[in-house]
Amino acid sequence: CSTPVLDADRHERLREKMRRRQEAGDRWFSLEFFPPRTANAAVNLISRFDRMGAGGPLFIDVTWHPAGDPGSDKETSSMIIANTAVNYCGLETILHMTCCNQTKDDITGHLQKAKRLGLKNIMALRGDPAGEEWEDEVDGFNHAVDLVKHIRSEFDDYFDVCVAGYPKGHPEAESYESDLRHLKEKVFAGADFIITQLFFRPETFFKFMKDCQAIGITCPIIPGIFPIQGYHSLRQLVKLSKLEVPQEIKDVIEPMKDNDAAIRNYGVELAVSMCRELLDSGMVHGLHFYTLNREVATTEVLKRLGLWKEDPRRPLPWAVSAHPKRRVEDVRPIFWASRPKSYIYRTQEWDDFPNGRWGNSSSPAFGELKDYYLFYLKSKSPREELLKMWGEELTGEESVFEVFTCYITGEPNRNGYRVTCMPWNDDPLATETNLLKDQLEKVNRRGILTINSQPNINGKPSTDPIVGWGPSGGYVFQKAYLEFFTSSEIVTALLKVLKKYELRVNYHIVNVKGQNITNAPDLQPNAVTWGIFPGREIIQPTVVDPVSFLSWKDEAFALWIEQWAKLYEEESPSRMIIQYIHDNYYLVNLVDNDFPLENCLWQVVDDTFELLN
Amino acid sequence: CSTPVLDADRHERLREKMRRRQEAGDRWFSLEFFPPRTANAAVNLISRFDRMGAGGPLFIDVTWHPAGDPGSDKETSSMIIANTAVNYCGLETILHMTCCNQTKDDITGHLQKAKRLGLKNIMALRGDPAGEEWEDEVDGFNHAVDLVKHIRSEFDDYFDVCVAGYPKGHPEAESYESDLRHLKEKVFAGADFIITQLFFRPETFFKFMKDCQAIGITCPIIPGIFPIQGYHSLRQLVKLSKLEVPQEIKDVIEPMKDNDAAIRNYGVELAVSMCRELLDSGMVHGLHFYTLNREVATTEVLKRLGLWKEDPRRPLPWAVSAHPKRRVEDVRPIFWASRPKSYIYRTQEWDDFPNGRWGNSSSPAFGELKDYYLFYLKSKSPREELLKMWGEELTGEESVFEVFTCYITGEPNRNGYRVTCMPWNDDPLATETNLLKDQLEKVNRRGILTINSQPNINGKPSTDPIVGWGPSGGYVFQKAYLEFFTSSEIVTALLKVLKKYELRVNYHIVNVKGQNITNAPDLQPNAVTWGIFPGREIIQPTVVDPVSFLSWKDEAFALWIEQWAKLYEEESPSRMIIQYIHDNYYLVNLVDNDFPLENCLWQVVDDTFELLN
Repeated sequence: CSTPVLDADRHERLREKMRRRQEAGDRWFSLEFFPPRTANAAVNLISRFDRMGAGGPLFIDVTWHPAGDPGSDKETSSMIIANTAVNYCGLETILHMTCCNQTKDDITGHLQKAKRLGLKNIMALRGDPAGEEWEDEVDGFNHAVDLVKHIRSEFDDYFDVCVAGYPKGHPEAESYESDLRHLKEKVFAGADFIITQLFFRPETFFKFMKDCQAIGITCPIIPGIFPIQGYHSLRQLVKLSKLEVPQEIKDVIEPMKDNDAAIRNYGVELAVSMCRELLDSGMVHGLHFYTLNREVATTEVLKRLGLWKEDPRRPLPWAVSAHPKRRVEDVRPIFWASRPKSYIYRTQEWDDFPNGRWGNSSSPAFGELKDYYLFYLKSKSPREELLKMWGEELTGEESVFEVFTCYITGEPNRNGYRVTCMPWNDDPLATETNLLKDQLEKVNRRGILTINSQPNINGKPSTDPIVGWGPSGGYVFQKAYLEFFTSSEIVTALLKVLKKYELRVNYHIVNVKGQNITNAPDLQPNAVTWGIFPGREIIQPTVVDPVSFLSWKDEAFALWIEQWAKLYEEESPSRMIIQYIHDNYYLVNLVDNDFPLENCLWQVVDDTFELLN
Repeated sequence: CSTPVLDADRHERLREKMRRRQEAGDRWFSLEFFPPRTANAAVNLISRFDRMGAGGPLFIDVTWHPAGDPGSDKETSSMIIANTAVNYCGLETILHMTCCNQTKDDITGHLQKAKRLGLKNIMALRGDPAGEEWEDEVDGFNHAVDLVKHIRSEFDDYFDVCVAGYPKGHPEAESYESDLRHLKEKVFAGADFIITQLFFRPETFFKFMKDCQAIGITCPIIPGIFPIQGYHSLRQLVKLSKLEVPQEIKDVIEPMKDNDAAIRNYGVELAVSMCRELLDSGMVHGLHFYTLNREVATTEVLKRLGLWKEDPRRPLPWAVSAHPKRRVEDVRPIFWASRPKSYIYRTQEWDDFPNGRWGNSSSPAFGELKDYYLFYLKSKSPREELLKMWGEELTGEESVFEVFTCYITGEPNRNGYRVTCMPWNDDPLATETNLLKDQLEKVNRRGILTINSQPNINGKPSTDPIVGWGPSGGYVFQKAYLEFFTSSEIVTALLKVLKKYELRVNYHIVNVKGQNITNAPDLQPNAVTWGIFPGREIIQPTVVDPVSFLSWKDEAFALWIEQWAKLYEEESPSRMIIQYIHDNYYLVNLVDNDFPLENCLWQVVDDTFELLN
């Protein structure tokens, strides 16, 4: 997910961010994507958002295709993809919207929905006319400027509005000059900035920019960059946009039209050189990339330009959401550490988000996980791969222990496959968890099946590459945390051992039926991660909250069945083993409150095993 | 102020506290006071509340004398004294209220006012009839039970209600038995507990208690203890209450009726022995003391009984208020550290109090300090004493530096007087500030006139006798803080030096006109005290808030004039020196953000002096 280092990135609107970056002489880029055709493609696109988001785009935008039901609730619609980018990937996002052939009510409905979902930026476009014969509709939307005016009159200043600029003039415009006048109208109607259509020569952009300035357009104009990625995609784009490819480019491409890799390398080279010229001119502060939903070429161009900034620093230990109503959110229960999208989904109906403190049990309820196949909760790996990792056939609880152990160690399982994900974590072990690897391996082998943990930290610099987060110059702290499934036999022994640690260790132990054993005072939350920064209040981004633990428990137990048991035939022994664990194991969490001392949780577990022997 | 160690003390109502103490086998005491006659006596009584509050009473109560305008806004009224006890001294308080000869509307008005002021407990009494001939009024209040019923019908369960019990029967009752029946009526009408009239022999109480139980009274009955403090006070009390002093006591007292000290010693002895018998019986869990607004005898009895508990542990670093609406308050700006009553006064109109975080500058405005002579802001020392401490005649700014230096060192000034208070601090230097004494002395001598400071603390146990606060098992932290007045010449040098410390030290520098120089990012508050506790969220009770600093600045500068300059004749040189400082000096605060390292603020000040040389 995105990594805005500055608080401002969570609070400013897009046009302010743009201005601040320009003032600071800080160059930026943005990425354009189109909505996917299938649910599987959507899962992949969202992974791509996460990966490309890590490079630090100022925003992404999602195109709008009237034929594809773009405003619907389908998981592949422009609206829902933009919603996912903002809410689940934490990306500043512009939703495109076209207006021709649509009623005012339709448009208003789309805009209201976008606002409700937390979208804050609209790219106002005319769209393509339905037939060949284009006639102005009375009272309808005939031009992008009508949509800009409509947004401003109906939604005041809520949205940042972007419009398209055509460096060569719009193909349907009477003339280049009349097109410039149309652009000026759009800006004067309330657009905040302009993104240009793609072009092939920097001079094209420079002339366009000067002409814009000459007629009084002063807002930012962002050049649209199209790294050529293949012969056919270029041809199709050129056909659609009615642009002409310069002869010198055609001359290079035609001879290698069947060699995609060669064309892409050339495209990258060309884009890098054009971008350099644009940036060196001092007229350009940001670059907009037409990605065609592909990663390689654009990432390569950005890296070569030095614009790709994979900043390991995090504003908070978890991935933030970009919905305006979550702007102040800075506390979450630790339980969803590996499932931030699920947490965002289950809290999407909340009106207020915890800021500064989690507070007591009066927080609103968590939403149900009604559909485990919702695309953003689905594993990225297909069933066959999961079976290879988690076992085609389980022979007992021990084979489950083995899966957990292999996930921790990173060693191949008995069939030679590495376990790179688990039902509770779709990614390999976090670097931080790696610090605990040896101990985790030992306990998983013996049936303490860990799904979440963190070491204690007594004041490391906030810039620490592994455990650091937040602004620089600060110090971060953690209480040691361990969360696992385990059998009732082990729980019985554990409870005896915990008596010795009564004042030091807080525990919550619960089974699928909700039987709950805890020593937490008054159901108060326990802060387990916090940071102290220069000139700021304390931030405590993760807590162990006894109340939300019961909501998490439902999800954590359900994942056994939904993600694992259901890989096997009904009534099969493998499925019955998972079902047995689901029905009989306990979910346990332990916090060592004495963060300045050595983590005592391993001793607690050792004592438990010793008691059992 | 009171020192409730447990959170529960801030959240439970009185009857719950009583029950919890009883269940825990934890014995307690309470103290009765009457309202003072003069404003000066009120200042003294409030100091007594603070001192006796430190011994840990479960509650205090304030009596009600219809002749003294008890419900008025006068600073000596029962209502306002109870208000001060609750709000400014943080004491659980019962306000007495009598009902005879008053209309329902009057009574309702008093109760509404009490509720508005944050009072939660009422002692419902009949009061004395106006004339000798007592006749029931139709539709009026004739008995305490009428008041109990009225409270319950008009205010539901809002108030905890206490009633009086007469171990010897009410002097006007037909009989002991009929009086018991009246008491039962009062309890069944909704009283929560009973406090008894004073008595001289434990048997009197035991019989009364058994008789109460026999007729079905099950609520707590608290014996009223009257330590005999002098011959005349005893006589007067006996006359008013129509009680008879047992012969064996008369026999002891009569011979020494002119020796107050001897009588008091005897009274203490007698009270201790009776209290021991009451407590040993197992029937008594708390003792109520009729103090007659005196400290010595009651404190002595309590100390000898082992009930006086001066617990050095504080729930928060500052003195909490007991107003229900401030129950969740746990963050304050550090500026009022030595003037908590002023802070409470200036924020009394707030509807919400910061909990968990101070938040940004949107907090409601601070009230004006319209009247510096408001009794709870007035110095306890009279003018002559202040002149001896702060100088009968000032000869220049240096004589002011000297006063500050003497206050820090505790050494006598050139006229042989110790400076035990300052306009910004009515008490001697705090133990914690003493840790910084040597450095403070050095800088005050040279014109850095410190009014507030704290050392940095990197995780000391929360039970530390000097810097600890909050529940045990935790760790407390602080950023070093220094606040002082100084000349513009020093400020100029300081600002040059601070450039070197830009990332480490946050500063706010302001003069009386409001010229404001700061490097605080976005006017955010900076947490300077925080604590980490087992099973809880982080608590950060003090912040340096740039916005409220400007409200504090007004108060801090005004104190120069109101408390110091005005001691001298108008136009006198002394007064003009203080006026000059007021008009020309700056108020500066500095925070060293790097709390794990050695405090750099002394280095900052040294560098500044060096630059000036």
